[in-house]
Amino acid sequence: MSHSFATLAAFRALLASQPAVDVAAQDAAAARDGQLTKPPGALGRLEDLAIWYRGWRGGAANEISAPQVIVFAGNHGVAARGVSAFQAEVTAQMVMNFQTGGAAINQIARSVGASLDVVSLDLDAPTEDFTKAPAMDEEAFVAALQSGWDAVDPQADLLVVGEMGIANTTSAAALACALLGGEAADWTGRGTGVDDAGLSLKTRVVAEAVALHGGQGDGLETLRRLGGRELAGMVGAIARARALRIPVILDGFICCAAALCLAQSHAGALDHAVAGHLSAEGGHARLLEALGKAPLLQLGLRLGEASGGALAIGVLKGAVACHVGMATFAEAGVSDT
Amino acid sequence: MSHSFATLAAFRALLASQPAVDVAAQDAAAARDGQLTKPPGALGRLEDLAIWYRGWRGGAANEISAPQVIVFAGNHGVAARGVSAFQAEVTAQMVMNFQTGGAAINQIARSVGASLDVVSLDLDAPTEDFTKAPAMDEEAFVAALQSGWDAVDPQADLLVVGEMGIANTTSAAALACALLGGEAADWTGRGTGVDDAGLSLKTRVVAEAVALHGGQGDGLETLRRLGGRELAGMVGAIARARALRIPVILDGFICCAAALCLAQSHAGALDHAVAGHLSAEGGHARLLEALGKAPLLQLGLRLGEASGGALAIGVLKGAVACHVGMATFAEAGVSDT
Repeated sequence: MSHSFATLAAFRALLASQPAVDVAAQDAAAARDGQLTKPPGALGRLEDLAIWYRGWRGGAANEISAPQVIVFAGNHGVAARGVSAFQAEVTAQMVMNFQTGGAAINQIARSVGASLDVVSLDLDAPTEDFTKAPAMDEEAFVAALQSGWDAVDPQADLLVVGEMGIANTTSAAALACALLGGEAADWTGRGTGVDDAGLSLKTRVVAEAVALHGGQGDGLETLRRLGGRELAGMVGAIARARALRIPVILDGFICCAAALCLAQSHAGALDHAVAGHLSAEGGHARLLEALGKAPLLQLGLRLGEASGGALAIGVLKGAVACHVGMATFAEAGVSDT
Repeated sequence: MSHSFATLAAFRALLASQPAVDVAAQDAAAARDGQLTKPPGALGRLEDLAIWYRGWRGGAANEISAPQVIVFAGNHGVAARGVSAFQAEVTAQMVMNFQTGGAAINQIARSVGASLDVVSLDLDAPTEDFTKAPAMDEEAFVAALQSGWDAVDPQADLLVVGEMGIANTTSAAALACALLGGEAADWTGRGTGVDDAGLSLKTRVVAEAVALHGGQGDGLETLRRLGGRELAGMVGAIARARALRIPVILDGFICCAAALCLAQSHAGALDHAVAGHLSAEGGHARLLEALGKAPLLQLGLRLGEASGGALAIGVLKGAVACHVGMATFAEAGVSDT
């Protein structure tokens, strides 16, 4: 089940042979849903989520007991342009904070009963400044995809991917703009909190990057040019989860921009994924619309680190717990009218 | 701390002497929030929630470890008018389902680590049909308030209240219409799923009830006339939680209609409460607006049973876990620019 792909072509070949949803399992789940002790549809989106989850897991009819959160970290050459409110060294400092348990994602993962893995990707070697050259050559890009692929725990029954990387909202905005069109300003937000002058500079940088790399290839090629190692890591992990039939919760703007690259290369490659939350980063709503995914939570988060996606684990756990644990009308002796 | 109130006047007197938020604790929480390892505001609503929670808990700086969910059940004389898609005996059948662990709320409470108590209120003696007479006399009303007051666990650190009672969306619609104005049709929804003819009948019943009891007194008096035992039980529990400095998460349309009665009698009586979710029942959005409360979740639930409120425990747990457990910039050695 675990592959090494020496080339991007090998990764693409894997994507072309991924499993589909188990329609029989999905139909069985829908039939069970209709018999549970509640008015039809009264659990709203929880019902759809449980049916979707069961369809992707196939035969397994268990509650969610082993969710995994992976945070990928990477550094960006474009940070040198001053596009972030924070300095590039904060990426490594925050990785240390993840490892010692002091970050938001540590608390949220613990709170929802998820394991947390942190994958630090060559922080001492930032990607190229993509206003001048592609962010990664194929070797670096494939290595980051592979790191993501390898980071998924085959025993997990749910995966959330997220990221840390100073300047990576700039990368995400450039990816969304290159793949979905519109103006750089439509996709560029304040990230961790740049001021008006910073936002103006950041927008110019995104426009330069898109002018250089837009229309040069499909989603994955665009990710190589405008992405970063942590974005590629998330893509590798999302793809591996599909191979393992592990449903995925996406995090915020940066995670969804990476996921968009995957979806634009392989239609349906995100069918096993739901959107965890709507972030406060301006472009995220439009990005979710383009992905055709409605967020589970809308709490104004804009932290990254998989924080919103991890918080949404609780919703999915509740949905599946209801589906698996509720009595049917017949079992409970409840009249269904 | 535990009181018996023989009369409604005694309950009103208690409401008048309830504790306020601990401003010093709230300020200390806000100061701590500003030092945690995240960009300012990046946890969005989680930050406000944690500060609010800490303010109500006062000195205690702990994570949420003992949330309590209470489901109150009652039967309504107005059910005989045929306003529900289900028969009145389903209330007792569902109480049995709660007690044997087969309902949605059992699964959700377990999933979020909450205890669950079910308080069944004289199911064999429905309230009066409020299109003909007040639903309860003062004795019955005060007894239901007292049941709610007594049901709160003083050791709980968070409370969610919810309900089960065939025909109680009719009661809730009448309460909202009587207290907030508008037409009966503005507040009357399909509840557990009445058809068009059922909705039309239900709307007429609500209009009759409001014509008879509207403008006859304040929130609590209106609750006596148009409410039900399970609605009064929720009000008693919300009030007791305030006395114990236990923050509250409200559930859906019926819970919020009951809470509205409390707030209309005593301004600020819901300051220790947040809205757990926006239900699919049509009037709930307007009701939340009148209460000035933005929902934590919006998942299209319309089940009652405290299900949406209980699901929101996960959000509040995550918020408080971040606030209590995160490192400060200084502790973690992370640069704050």
